[in-house]
Amino acid sequence: MKESDEFLILQKFFKSLGSQYNDSSGVLVGPGDDAGLFSVKNSELVFSTDVSNENIHFPKKLDPELIAYRACAVAASDIAACGASLKWLSISLVTPNKSLDWLKKFAKGIQNFTKNYRVPVIGGDLVSGKECSISIGVCGEVKKDVFLSRKGAKIGDSIYVTGKLGLAKLGLELSLRKKSKLSTLEKESLKKFLEPKIQILLGINLRKIANSCIDISDGLLGDLNHICEESQVGARIDKELIPYTGSFEEAMTWGDDYELCFTVPQNKEKKLDEIRKKIETKFCKIGQIISGKGIKIFDHQQEITLKKTGYNHFRK
Amino acid sequence: MKESDEFLILQKFFKSLGSQYNDSSGVLVGPGDDAGLFSVKNSELVFSTDVSNENIHFPKKLDPELIAYRACAVAASDIAACGASLKWLSISLVTPNKSLDWLKKFAKGIQNFTKNYRVPVIGGDLVSGKECSISIGVCGEVKKDVFLSRKGAKIGDSIYVTGKLGLAKLGLELSLRKKSKLSTLEKESLKKFLEPKIQILLGINLRKIANSCIDISDGLLGDLNHICEESQVGARIDKELIPYTGSFEEAMTWGDDYELCFTVPQNKEKKLDEIRKKIETKFCKIGQIISGKGIKIFDHQQEITLKKTGYNHFRK
Repeated sequence: MKESDEFLILQKFFKSLGSQYNDSSGVLVGPGDDAGLFSVKNSELVFSTDVSNENIHFPKKLDPELIAYRACAVAASDIAACGASLKWLSISLVTPNKSLDWLKKFAKGIQNFTKNYRVPVIGGDLVSGKECSISIGVCGEVKKDVFLSRKGAKIGDSIYVTGKLGLAKLGLELSLRKKSKLSTLEKESLKKFLEPKIQILLGINLRKIANSCIDISDGLLGDLNHICEESQVGARIDKELIPYTGSFEEAMTWGDDYELCFTVPQNKEKKLDEIRKKIETKFCKIGQIISGKGIKIFDHQQEITLKKTGYNHFRK
Repeated sequence: MKESDEFLILQKFFKSLGSQYNDSSGVLVGPGDDAGLFSVKNSELVFSTDVSNENIHFPKKLDPELIAYRACAVAASDIAACGASLKWLSISLVTPNKSLDWLKKFAKGIQNFTKNYRVPVIGGDLVSGKECSISIGVCGEVKKDVFLSRKGAKIGDSIYVTGKLGLAKLGLELSLRKKSKLSTLEKESLKKFLEPKIQILLGINLRKIANSCIDISDGLLGDLNHICEESQVGARIDKELIPYTGSFEEAMTWGDDYELCFTVPQNKEKKLDEIRKKIETKFCKIGQIISGKGIKIFDHQQEITLKKTGYNHFRK
């Protein structure tokens, strides 16, 4: 079937996605040549790649439009955590679904993402395989002196998170069963799982304010622990300050939220309050960076312990 | 098992690969943060991504060291075809093999590639899945005015290819069976399949000389046809001029060679001869760009036709 030629599919579905943003992103040659060509102006770049696999990162039966959107969002979240603006995406798709209909829906999801975040697709690859696996590369732009790293947390910093943790876990559960009447919370959680909002704007606003930042991809505890390890500090968080839904333990360890966790020195918290007024994203203080190692969790001044501490594909 | 923590594996095996080339590549922050940070000096960048899947791009039972090396080479070949120098790699690995031994061997293959081409790894992802799939992102550096595109072929250009086509096909067959005594050709073909040499140096030398260039990933006919379509020209190639081994049809349509095919205007062929003396890679003239569409193949002035024209994962 001529139409299903890999090259034609790539051309037809992936080539022009977000190409209206080529100029603003400095993309000079998009998909269709051996590589995409792009320019950079007086800045440094960041690059990150994330793989989304069926049955690990999304249910196999999920609408391909949502699979694609979610995969882009998950990858772009790392760029937000660096305080960078989005520059371009690259899309590698391995899929057992060879129908044009499936591929069209998948492309629609990519297109929705490119429109929402005004970012072009610079290239990609399309390969037939036994299970659906999407590897998204994302490039962003940020000057090196304002790059938000995991390394900069200082003792005394206040710890913040965006959003409500555990929402995506509830959303995942709802995506697996058909429920006709959804509560406001359920609607919010389903949207959160299927089309996570990426905190690019907050990340950019946190430049020169946050000492460290990470996106929550493996659960708050696991990711805050990365900040602690890289910064050689400890953390204390207070259960009653943390916005969450469902089981507290799961909200702390489930890896689908893609919120930001960041630390801010106390002398910059006034500036943070100004950001709060400027942008839509909600965030709140949940604890403090302390000396030592690891994370202490308190519930009304009483230290508590959890069984699980994070999600891990390779744990035996 | 603590040691198999995804984060620790990533740190241990992937973090430091090629990091000795961070400075020369302008990599400021390598793996271990949310994204890698890198700088660019007075130039444009190219980016390409390629997926290698088990049983499509390599036999499942292949030594993981060779799987990894080959995946890097295949992806980097696109950068060569643009006339760019290599800047960094990113490695996304989906694998059912969770043994540290398998992952160590895989990392060794990546390391060998980084050493041979003096290029760092800027980041990656590691995910458990049903089949082995490797998505490699490659970034290169080239000024936009010397970027080698598929679009620039002109009527009258001479068409060149590097190496001997069909070698990788023979190498693949040899990799699937154990044969104790190998002929010189067989040894050459096995090395060609397992550790393809990437023509970065030739690509750089072709700047300002070649009008168009592509790497042969889908077979000479398919890839030369991309040049023809993008440049809106036709091509005539002569069987007796083409270096190949095995079946002519397979050598023209098998997608594992990763040689370069490029076109050069006749007034620059003297300069090309000077390059021939300077660098190791062998290349030879196989035909000419003509007006019209598609590729005409001649055997001693007699036009011939082939049944197959290229490899395609999505052909039904």
